[in-house]
Order: sequence, then structure tokens, then C-alpha cells
Amino acid sequence: MQLQNIIQEKERLFFGSEVPEVYETDLFVKGVAKVHAVVLPETTEEVVALVHYANEKELSIIARGGGTGVAGAQVPITGNELIIDVHLMNHILELDEETMTLSLEPGVQLQEIQEFVESKGYFYPPDPGSKHSTIGGNVATNAGGMRAVKYGTTRDYIRELEIVLPTGEVVNLGSLNIKNSSGYDLKDLFIGSEGTLGITTKIKLKILPLPKYKQSVLLAFDTLAEATDGVLTILKSGIGPTALEMFEKSTIEYSEKFSGYKLQSQKGHAYVLMTIDSNDEGAISNKVETLNSILETKVLEIVPLTTPEEEDKVWKLRDNILVALMEFTEYEMLDEVVPINRFAEMIEYTKELQEIHGLSVINFGHAGDGNIHTVLMKENLDEETWQAKREALLDDLYQKVAELGGRPSAEHGIGIIKKSYFEKMSDNIEIELMKKIKNAIDPNNRLNPGKLF
Amino acid sequence: MQLQNIIQEKERLFFGSEVPEVYETDLFVKGVAKVHAVVLPETTEEVVALVHYANEKELSIIARGGGTGVAGAQVPITGNELIIDVHLMNHILELDEETMTLSLEPGVQLQEIQEFVESKGYFYPPDPGSKHSTIGGNVATNAGGMRAVKYGTTRDYIRELEIVLPTGEVVNLGSLNIKNSSGYDLKDLFIGSEGTLGITTKIKLKILPLPKYKQSVLLAFDTLAEATDGVLTILKSGIGPTALEMFEKSTIEYSEKFSGYKLQSQKGHAYVLMTIDSNDEGAISNKVETLNSILETKVLEIVPLTTPEEEDKVWKLRDNILVALMEFTEYEMLDEVVPINRFAEMIEYTKELQEIHGLSVINFGHAGDGNIHTVLMKENLDEETWQAKREALLDDLYQKVAELGGRPSAEHGIGIIKKSYFEKMSDNIEIELMKKIKNAIDPNNRLNPGKLF
Repeated sequence: MQLQNIIQEKERLFFGSEVPEVYETDLFVKGVAKVHAVVLPETTEEVVALVHYANEKELSIIARGGGTGVAGAQVPITGNELIIDVHLMNHILELDEETMTLSLEPGVQLQEIQEFVESKGYFYPPDPGSKHSTIGGNVATNAGGMRAVKYGTTRDYIRELEIVLPTGEVVNLGSLNIKNSSGYDLKDLFIGSEGTLGITTKIKLKILPLPKYKQSVLLAFDTLAEATDGVLTILKSGIGPTALEMFEKSTIEYSEKFSGYKLQSQKGHAYVLMTIDSNDEGAISNKVETLNSILETKVLEIVPLTTPEEEDKVWKLRDNILVALMEFTEYEMLDEVVPINRFAEMIEYTKELQEIHGLSVINFGHAGDGNIHTVLMKENLDEETWQAKREALLDDLYQKVAELGGRPSAEHGIGIIKKSYFEKMSDNIEIELMKKIKNAIDPNNRLNPGKLF
Repeated sequence: MQLQNIIQEKERLFFGSEVPEVYETDLFVKGVAKVHAVVLPETTEEVVALVHYANEKELSIIARGGGTGVAGAQVPITGNELIIDVHLMNHILELDEETMTLSLEPGVQLQEIQEFVESKGYFYPPDPGSKHSTIGGNVATNAGGMRAVKYGTTRDYIRELEIVLPTGEVVNLGSLNIKNSSGYDLKDLFIGSEGTLGITTKIKLKILPLPKYKQSVLLAFDTLAEATDGVLTILKSGIGPTALEMFEKSTIEYSEKFSGYKLQSQKGHAYVLMTIDSNDEGAISNKVETLNSILETKVLEIVPLTTPEEEDKVWKLRDNILVALMEFTEYEMLDEVVPINRFAEMIEYTKELQEIHGLSVINFGHAGDGNIHTVLMKENLDEETWQAKREALLDDLYQKVAELGGRPSAEHGIGIIKKSYFEKMSDNIEIELMKKIKNAIDPNNRLNPGKLF
């Protein structure tokens, strides 16, 4: 069989030297090989034919969406890879208001999903940083984001997946049923498997009614430890925040310089940016009142952001951290996660590492769920020194994450850049179980080989 | 090796004819063989030794908790089964208030968990019917219950599991981390696997702050279809009910006769019993007000149950349906689930089946999540006629469930009694994937063979 028999339009098929360079990299990680070919299917049937083709030619398959990954899960590493780019499979198929389900192709972008459902009075809570990421990619990494503390991650919103298996068979996993105790939970096995078990070709998402009211509040604390203590108090209070973002003063300063305006509080050294939502207007003000009374002795200042403009300003500062940083230095962003009560300890340890290894480190993160984004900054170091220092620092950092009961990736996935840490930090029996499952489902290692483990 | 070397106390070991009869059955389903032996381990180490013993002697293993299953997943079917009864592993190990996690052995009963955490100001939402079920069993079936519509099922509260694998290896799956994207989601694969992949020996549960206020409301509708329509309206309103139970007048009448008092509404033919909870007292009355306005044209009567006594009375009527029924007839209870918008259609079809097959059928269920408990009643039929009629009816019923996109079990599991329907209703590719995974993890089919598939 020829690829041209499956994908006839020239603009949907690239071979060897014609392959655009963008396919050799994701947002941060460059592959170590050239791509054999790139195809842009438009239907599940074409994906099936491509899988059969890859089996016949003994090619590996990488499924790719928005290319906004940051762990190298979609980059070529052997030179034998056929990239199936699903970004033309980008249709919203159906909004079923009775079951509150949205059916989609995998290439639909997050931003389009959010805008579409909100225009109809609904809400899709997962909110990963990159709004240009595709829902297929969100499924592959179980993407998280800001609202996970209240609403969970992508996994919690997947009702059904259509998957093309390594054999070319098509299977539907999950259903529109809310409860199920009928056999193994295969759907959750495929979610977060980073393209190593199957290729997602259709997704049915659970959506919620759009909350009527929301408000953000900025909390200023003297130290990170006090901010973390405040976060634990909030979590136990039953206030049920939608987002609980923490950042250090030294982190937000990059964003302040970039944006040209200041955070609404300049007190202390650590900030918590919190959102509350509700369908009951009174509940919002009651929650803010509760916040005042439970944090009274801990907080330096509580700043309610009562206008959309003020809210927008503070969230832009938060969202711009990474973009702002690009103006100043090359960097590497991590997404380690620890149990919430170890959040401050972990962040403080990164400060020690900064001293030990002579590498600048800043932190921000999702305090409500223990997910830290530690950022290592290259600044003026030459490439060789940077690589040596970052590797030495990462060894220490991930060892600490393991000691605290944490995991290497909260929401970006393992890809290729966290593989060695993932294996080191995991029980060997657990990794062996994963390999047994991979081998049972994909015995020829056709799908995304060399990723994860 | 001898079993007596592993379990030395006589009262923790039963052989052949000494095995108490209770081990041949669960709450409803009788096994078709005798049990080889029953052991009651007290530690994970003993469970490991027992698994090694079973491997050496080529015995099958059934793990058993409260014996409150209703699908036959814990009953002997070959005569070669060693039952590992975990009910002596019944200790609450630790309440970690910082991570809001409760560590338990698998034999702790649901009721004890609920009482324990509520005494400390916390809340464990899953609420399956049998309060004497054990948490190990709840994990094995992904048990659901009344509060699933707002809070989800057992799966949503499992942070970590200690599992003894068929090899005798011990592995911890999951972690105290709230977010995770580090490899395959093995934890969710083991949850709901009905003892076919591993034996759970320790569990860490997520708990929530106990909501401060709650109230129940009884809604009376003229017909089931109107009640279902009302339920969909409620779900879309954002009220966020904790429970949404539906029952027919003909069902609750059994409970009224048994309890000696009447439901607080006698209007119409279908009732919805709803609970709302909140940490904000005002939110409760606002939600009841919203209810009044959105249901105005649909409902016959809305009865707020404002005192604990009234609330207790109505929930006792609901909870007593099955016990009440035992006074009148033998019966078989199902737990089919359909997408919520097909709930009324499914229940109405059971009424047609009643006429077609000449078998009395009543229904109650968790309307908020599409889970119906259809009950087939033997009444005065002789055993042979009953079996013939129930089989014919079940064939039709499960075919309809499949047509509506439903699944055979929402919360009880497949066990042995739903095996044939499960296989018939599932895509063959999906079942083959499950079998591949079973074979990869338990190649000698040591754990609970003949259950599920």
C-alpha cells in the first residue's frame, strides 16, 4: 500500500525533507531524529487505514494535536515515526443538552470548547494554561489547570472515547452513563497514556451548568509557609474555592515588569489568588466573610477584586508569568506535585537548591492541589554549564519530590524529558505492571515507542 | 507449605466441611460449589503468604469482605477456591487532617467510616445501601449509592490502594497527590475489578469537610415521564442536589404498609426525593425557592421536610423498600443504568415487560445518575415458572438497556449473575481488551476466576 492511496491531497501529506520543522519539536522539547512522514487525516477511517499502513511498513506512530506539549511526548526520537496530526479533525459534533454532553473530534482547541459551551450557558471546567492545546492532547496527558482544586482534571470530564487501537480496531470506551460498574475501567487507563495505547478519534465531554456568580480575591502573606498554612485552612473550611493559585513575590515581579503595572497588594512575600463561584449571589459574600474570619491572624491583607477590570488585571499577571519570563531568560518549567501539606516544604527546598547549584529558581503553582511549577532559569550561563547545573539540580529536586510522596508530573505528562526520573521515583513493580499492560495492548510497540518508559 | 503454618489460630482457618455455610453465598446469590478453605488473615504479610500458598497448591482465590455483594462475585463456583475473608483486617489506621485522608484496612465497615469521620467534622460521601459492606468490597465494585449525583462514587474517593498481586508482590497504586499525570492510571483499573486483578489490603480515602446545612424536599408528579422531566430540569438548574431518588407510588406502597405510615405526599404516581446541602444556610432556602420557580408547571406538590423527624420518616420509607418487599415476596433486584434522559423510557419499558411476561415489576432508583433498581417479584409463581419468566424478561430488559446506551451494572458489579448479559451488551473488542489485561496481570487466572467474564 502507498500513503498516497490513503491521503490523496498533497497538503495533507509530507514526506522526509518536506516535513515542516515544527513537527520535530513541541513547545519546549526538540526531538532527536527526523520525521519519516506527517499525515493529516480527516476521518476515523483514514486513521484506521494509517494504522494498518504503519503495521505493514513497521513504522511507529505518533499522534499529535496542538503541538503545545512540554514533555516531548510528540517529538520524533528514532526517525521511523509517522506523525498523525489530528488538527484537521477539529469539528464540534453535537451538544446534547439532555445528557449535558459535548461530542468532539480530537483536534478541537480548548479555547473553542470553552467559548462554545459558555455561549450556550454551560461550563467546561478543565483549564490548562495553553488555550491552543487540543482536546485530544488534553486527554493524552490528563491535562489539569487552574480549576482542578474544585472541579478536577480532564479525566473527570471524559464520558466516552473513540479509540483506534494498535491493531487498527476501533473501540468505544466509557458511555453516557454517569455510574458504571460493568467490567474494567479501560477509559481511565487510556486517559493520560500519552498516545502509547491508542489514538483518540472522538471524545464525549461532560459539561456543567455555568455558575452564575464568581469573584476573585487576592491574599497577601508574609512567607510561603504562612501562605500554605492559609491554603490548608481554606481547604478545610468548606468554602470550596474554584482556583487557589500561589506565587512568590519574586515570581510575579517578572510579570509586573512585563505588564507595566503592579499587583494589587505589595505586602509580604507570598500571594494566593483565589476564585469562588456559586449560583447563589449571597453565598459569594458569605464565603468572603468566612475567609476574613478564618484567616484573620494569618494574612497580611485580603483584597477582594470586585470589578471585572481588577479581576482581569490580576489574572493577566498570573497568566503572563511564563511569557514575561521569556523576555528575560531561557528556562525550563517543571510540574511536580506533592501532597498539599508538603507544598511549602517543597518550594522552600527549591530555594536551597538555588543556593547549592548556583541556578536561579522561581516557583508558582496550583496550591489547592499541590502542583508546583518550579522554573529553572538559564540566565547568562553557557549551554554546557546550564545543562550540567540543571541536571544536578533536577536529580536533587526529584529525589525530594519522591521523599515527600510526590510524583514527577501533575499535568504535563512524562514524555521523554521526565522518563528517567519517573522510573527512579516509581516502584519497580508498578512500572512492570504498566509495561505488561502496554505489551498486552500494543505487543509490537507501534504507538509512541520510547515515551513514558 | 501448610495453611496452618500461615494461619495458626483455629478460629481463623476453616477447611472443607468445617467451612460455615455463609461463605457459599452473598446477600442474594448462592454459589454452585463447596469452598476448599476459608482463612481470615490479620496482616498484609499473611495475605502475601496465602497468595504464595495458593500459587503453590494451584488454588483459586476469592477475597471477601462483608458478604453483602448481590452479584455473586464472592461465591464459590469450582470447588477449588480459597476464600480470603478480610473482615478481621478492620482497623482505622490514621486520620490525616492536613491532606484530609483516612487510612484504613479493607475490612472496615462503611457505617463505621461514616460515623468516625462525621464525629471529627468530616464527610465520606459514597453511601451504598448496605452500611455493613466493607470498604474493600466497595472498592471492588466501585460502589455508588444515593449521593453519587453530586459527589460521585467510591472511585472518586480512593487516593491510594495497597494491593497484593497474583504473584504475591505488594504494590501501592495512587498517592496522596491530588493531581497526577505520571504514567498509566493503574489505580482506577483495579477499582471495580471485582477481585480479579489483586487483593486490596490497605486503602487511603479522600474525605471532605462536612457540609453545615442540609434539607430534603419531596416532589410529587403525575407520571414517571413528568418526574424524569423534572429531574432533568433540576440537573440543568445548577441547584446541585446531593441526592435525587425517584420511586413509583406502587413501589413506596410496600414500604408504607411495612412501616405503618404514609408518605408525606399522596398526590400523583411518581415521587422524587431530593436532598440539598451547603455550608451556607441562605443558599439552602434560595435553592428551594429556585426549585419552586423552575418546576412550577410540572410538579403537583413540593413538600419541604423541615424537621429532622420528617426527614427521617421519608428516608426510612425509601431505605425500607427492599426490606418491606421481603415480607411480601421473593425478588431479584437489578442495577441497570441508562443515560439520564432515557430513565423514564427505561422504566416505562419495564412496565411493558410486566404485561408481556406476566411477572410483577416495580422500580426505584437514583434518578440523578440514571441508575434504576428494577425489581422482579416471584410472588406466587413456582420455582420453574419463576426462573423461566425471569430469564425471558431479563433477555428483553438488558437488550433495551443496550439500545438506550446503558450498561448492565451501575454499582453492584457483574459477578456471575450478569456475566452473559455483560458479554452480550459489550463490544467484543472491549471484552477482549479486558481479557488481555487480566491475562497480563494474572496469567494463571488465580484471582476470582469465572467472575466478570
